Amino acid sequence: MIIVMKPRASQEEIDKVENKLLSLGFKTHPIYGDVKTVIGAIGDKSRVDIEALSNLPGVEAIVPIMKPYKLVNRELKSSNSIVRIGDVEVGGNKLTIMAGPCAIEGYDQLLEVAKSVKQSGATILRGGAFKPRTSPYSFRGLEEEGLKILQHVSSETNMKSITEVVDTRDVELVCQYVDILQIGARNMQNFRLLSEVGKMDKPVLLKRGLSATIEEWLMAAEYILAAGNPNVILCERGIRTFETATRNTMDINAVVLVKQLSHLPVIADPSHGTGLWRLVHDVSLGLVAAGADGLMIEVHGDPANATSDGPQSLRPDKFDLLMKDLTALCSVLGKQFT
Amino acid sequence: MIIVMKPRASQEEIDKVENKLLSLGFKTHPIYGDVKTVIGAIGDKSRVDIEALSNLPGVEAIVPIMKPYKLVNRELKSSNSIVRIGDVEVGGNKLTIMAGPCAIEGYDQLLEVAKSVKQSGATILRGGAFKPRTSPYSFRGLEEEGLKILQHVSSETNMKSITEVVDTRDVELVCQYVDILQIGARNMQNFRLLSEVGKMDKPVLLKRGLSATIEEWLMAAEYILAAGNPNVILCERGIRTFETATRNTMDINAVVLVKQLSHLPVIADPSHGTGLWRLVHDVSLGLVAAGADGLMIEVHGDPANATSDGPQSLRPDKFDLLMKDLTALCSVLGKQFT
Amino acid sequence: MIIVMKPRASQEEIDKVENKLLSLGFKTHPIYGDVKTVIGAIGDKSRVDIEALSNLPGVEAIVPIMKPYKLVNRELKSSNSIVRIGDVEVGGNKLTIMAGPCAIEGYDQLLEVAKSVKQSGATILRGGAFKPRTSPYSFRGLEEEGLKILQHVSSETNMKSITEVVDTRDVELVCQYVDILQIGARNMQNFRLLSEVGKMDKPVLLKRGLSATIEEWLMAAEYILAAGNPNVILCERGIRTFETATRNTMDINAVVLVKQLSHLPVIADPSHGTGLWRLVHDVSLGLVAAGADGLMIEVHGDPANATSDGPQSLRPDKFDLLMKDLTALCSVLGKQFT
Amino acid sequence: MIIVMKPRASQEEIDKVENKLLSLGFKTHPIYGDVKTVIGAIGDKSRVDIEALSNLPGVEAIVPIMKPYKLVNRELKSSNSIVRIGDVEVGGNKLTIMAGPCAIEGYDQLLEVAKSVKQSGATILRGGAFKPRTSPYSFRGLEEEGLKILQHVSSETNMKSITEVVDTRDVELVCQYVDILQIGARNMQNFRLLSEVGKMDKPVLLKRGLSATIEEWLMAAEYILAAGNPNVILCERGIRTFETATRNTMDINAVVLVKQLSHLPVIADPSHGTGLWRLVHDVSLGLVAAGADGLMIEVHGDPANATSDGPQSLRPDKFDLLMKDLTALCSVLGKQFT
Repeated sequence: MIIVMKPRASQEEIDKVENKLLSLGFKTHPIYGDVKTVIGAIGDKSRVDIEALSNLPGVEAIVPIMKPYKLVNRELKSSNSIVRIGDVEVGGNKLTIMAGPCAIEGYDQLLEVAKSVKQSGATILRGGAFKPRTSPYSFRGLEEEGLKILQHVSSETNMKSITEVVDTRDVELVCQYVDILQIGARNMQNFRLLSEVGKMDKPVLLKRGLSATIEEWLMAAEYILAAGNPNVILCERGIRTFETATRNTMDINAVVLVKQLSHLPVIADPSHGTGLWRLVHDVSLGLVAAGADGLMIEVHGDPANATSDGPQSLRPDKFDLLMKDLTALCSVLGKQFT
Repeated sequence: MIIVMKPRASQEEIDKVENKLLSLGFKTHPIYGDVKTVIGAIGDKSRVDIEALSNLPGVEAIVPIMKPYKLVNRELKSSNSIVRIGDVEVGGNKLTIMAGPCAIEGYDQLLEVAKSVKQSGATILRGGAFKPRTSPYSFRGLEEEGLKILQHVSSETNMKSITEVVDTRDVELVCQYVDILQIGARNMQNFRLLSEVGKMDKPVLLKRGLSATIEEWLMAAEYILAAGNPNVILCERGIRTFETATRNTMDINAVVLVKQLSHLPVIADPSHGTGLWRLVHDVSLGLVAAGADGLMIEVHGDPANATSDGPQSLRPDKFDLLMKDLTALCSVLGKQFT
Repeated sequence: MIIVMKPRASQEEIDKVENKLLSLGFKTHPIYGDVKTVIGAIGDKSRVDIEALSNLPGVEAIVPIMKPYKLVNRELKSSNSIVRIGDVEVGGNKLTIMAGPCAIEGYDQLLEVAKSVKQSGATILRGGAFKPRTSPYSFRGLEEEGLKILQHVSSETNMKSITEVVDTRDVELVCQYVDILQIGARNMQNFRLLSEVGKMDKPVLLKRGLSATIEEWLMAAEYILAAGNPNVILCERGIRTFETATRNTMDINAVVLVKQLSHLPVIADPSHGTGLWRLVHDVSLGLVAAGADGLMIEVHGDPANATSDGPQSLRPDKFDLLMKDLTALCSVLGKQFT
Repeated sequence: MIIVMKPRASQEEIDKVENKLLSLGFKTHPIYGDVKTVIGAIGDKSRVDIEALSNLPGVEAIVPIMKPYKLVNRELKSSNSIVRIGDVEVGGNKLTIMAGPCAIEGYDQLLEVAKSVKQSGATILRGGAFKPRTSPYSFRGLEEEGLKILQHVSSETNMKSITEVVDTRDVELVCQYVDILQIGARNMQNFRLLSEVGKMDKPVLLKRGLSATIEEWLMAAEYILAAGNPNVILCERGIRTFETATRNTMDINAVVLVKQLSHLPVIADPSHGTGLWRLVHDVSLGLVAAGADGLMIEVHGDPANATSDGPQSLRPDKFDLLMKDLTALCSVLGKQFT
């Protein structure tokens, strides 16, 4: 890291900072400029709270040089990681489609959607049993009953399953029923929950937080890997910006950049990323063309009567059209559905 | 609410929407404009996912008219709520100061800071035992050992205590040791945690999420009240914006507006709201002059060696200066320290 | 529009609002709810500052129902507008590529880039003669000398030309030399400049402002059309958000949504939208797959020595690779280069 | 500045960067870390586009060390600058109040407001003659007729006057009629306009752009000083964020930080910063307590009939109340009205 001293920092202040760095095990390299002095510090900063150094007299700023994430960094592992759920793969040259309703409302509802999206080409069934809702007065999911329905329906349709887990107390329970654990955007920095799913032997889909920087997102993934679970799928789902014409702003740059920074697979969720079903088709094509390893899409047989997120859900016929266009796109991109 | 139909919506589409609304128990009032038709709907929308209605053919948008929060709404209770922790009050014409280190590092460290801030006029001692940290490699707090230290020191200095709880599994434990439970910014929409603290008989300080709208913040408070706990203190701690010269953007507008919208007391945390101790003094004065019911301020005896958040911590002497200026300000505002 | 009255608004207040609306030529339709009264108002609100109505006693909010833009609205003209610059078209089923350096640095530099991008398939040559720069100490362009070079080179390579105009005093001058006038992001709400280019008979490329909502962007286009110039090309170039890993956040949602809201063609600028040349290739493919009518891309023969925006400029060989991949993509999308 | 090389940068790449820096006149100081090499470069970077260096092979990032602004930097001039308009001062220990309607609508309207705000203690009369409006169909001001009214009324009430200039072609005209030129938020990076007002001998009030960073704002001020005009007053007027409950988010941190970074006076505009007159009183007190050198406040005799910005305008009686509370506050702060 680089410590930037203030314009009129005294030699005594500079010496104190150097001594502090040396006492922390760093090697130091001061550079005396015409106006400011900077001190290069080589060593392991993971053991110290380097920001606190900025309270030393004469210090103007601390500039980190190394990325704070290690295990998820492509510098450590240059080849793409592939997450396998049985015979379904996420990453590499595969395009993986996860589809289903926002919330599991009942067996018949889920089975109908599952059959339909399976026939169109989806291999992973999504459906929420524990729903984080902004209002305490909204439907919060069928909980364990929903998990049972999801397990039943995914088995019946020969699909893999994914559902969100929102509480450390539920992690083991959810693991009994589903193939992939989802950490939602609101829990991306619920570090206890990250550590808990990091101890499980199920793959984890980690959604980007509403206002999480790319670095924070990768650090959240680092939590899971550091706890022992290497099977993390990143999911870009739109960020919060000043624009209100769409529910979120889908960050296509992030999909491309994260694939360069990390070896982990990255999928995209255009349903939440746009909040408007009319945009889902075109935005999906864009994200896949830009390199997303897959998509997570909300599909509901009767969106106007959905208990949650109706405005962003595709009807099965629209989803089928999308899958046809994705098939054509795959041919150009050299990808294939898994 | 108001349902706005698309420009060329057919009478059949309009009728369908009206019938749907009627079946949900609403009374309807269509208004036929020159280009668009809108339908006023009177009734209780808390039972339905009104956004899903936007999937009905011909619907362009749904405009809610009523605020979604009830229990925290000043319309329901026009007088200011006062939260009492023994003889310490938050709200009304009192100014309440919570101070202490970001993280509890040990008994001696906490005692020294506690004595100092107490002498300057603070009545509530803050200190983190469970620290949410962006990096899995950072210090995460002393956990139960920290809680014991906090209890011991607050008792010794005759102060009330506050600490953050980050996991539903810890709520009962934390209640055994401290006076006020803090929900941090990252957990503002950890709805399970909100429900859990809502069942306790301890006051809850609810920080605004990093990118939470004012409405979402009030809805999070609604969760706690709806679970049975009326003693909620709101805490504005800065929001995430494009500006990077400060860690967050302290939203002074929110402090003023929330006090108009809700009867709950609102305090402010300029340490996190600025991220820079050099700004804390002046911003604190500003927030109190604008009407904040109190402040939460990080104070550390040796910020350059703090394990967490050093750059935003005041030294005890700077904190003392701030308290003197706040005293003068109180005289003009007609407030008094509690 | 809908006027929402406060919960305890008196009948007298409601009557006053109604009378005010009637006096402004609106027809009114009050709906009395259990808690709040809302008043539907039908009429032409373009003549009044409706927001001022919110100052009438008892008014809580004003909700507009009609879109404020008329001429650019797809509701007025459902077919896609095509902007023609000689035999080059923007819009419809064409894919139009504008390429060239950020700033015109000299005849040789521009000619070399122009020949190269022309051979790769670009048909419109971009190059800045008047550069808006954050620092007064940075290179601000060759001005009229640059315009002459641009005209010379575009003529020599049989390309159309585009350059930015930043001052009302320069509009006529720039029209003498180039085919398309560009309004940059920083001038999107320079309304005098919009009106001025609206009087010219040259097509205008209107970049979205750094923090402009989609509605504000369309209103800026409305200024140009209202002044008499229908040939407007919209250009999404990324918005400012909290994310700093990329220079801007490319808003792929906006590309798709604006094509639904307006009949105007929409192109995208991934160079500014990402700020990082390593992202330009993949993001470009994504934007075109999502429906962009074209791309504007910075290409520089020696980016490390560029006078402006080097980090986001492609080298000619990278640009050529992109054009090859775009060709394959066009085959799937049913589009062709113009 | 510091050049950070990529993890596996070759010695040849490092040498090339060093040679490039040497050829640009920098002295270089490479530091070889365990994973990355960084190169400290000492010299004058104002002559080169340093970002372009990031295109050299092996370069990961460029980290600037020196602030890009010089003339406005407090490092250059540590004492507070005071801008004098006749006997009215902005800066130092004075509190300066600018008040008046958003738009000048006529002589009688302006005179009435001017008399009232003058009596309450304001010394500078604001009023727009050229109004930047989002819609081409909105009232855009009385233009020169408005300037004449403003001159007449300010002379009659013995006040100083301020008005916005939006076009380089109008700068000289506006100078003939008013005492202070205002650059609005939308024109903060209209660099031609900045240069033009920099040539005048009238003080300039420079509003912060809607999404301008503090550094960009100071760079815009640098343009004016670099053109020869040292009399710049900065004005914080709220930034655009995700929050929509208020029109903008008033950045109180910026007021405090800019006064530390620069010697220029900083005032605040709570009318635009909140967009809601109900917030103006309390937010004004907060900004002044935090150190703002003055306020610009919209006051209108009949806000419900204002042609522009009615919802954020105070009525004269509310403004008078605010001035009384500011008087009390000044006594504590050691400030006095100018």
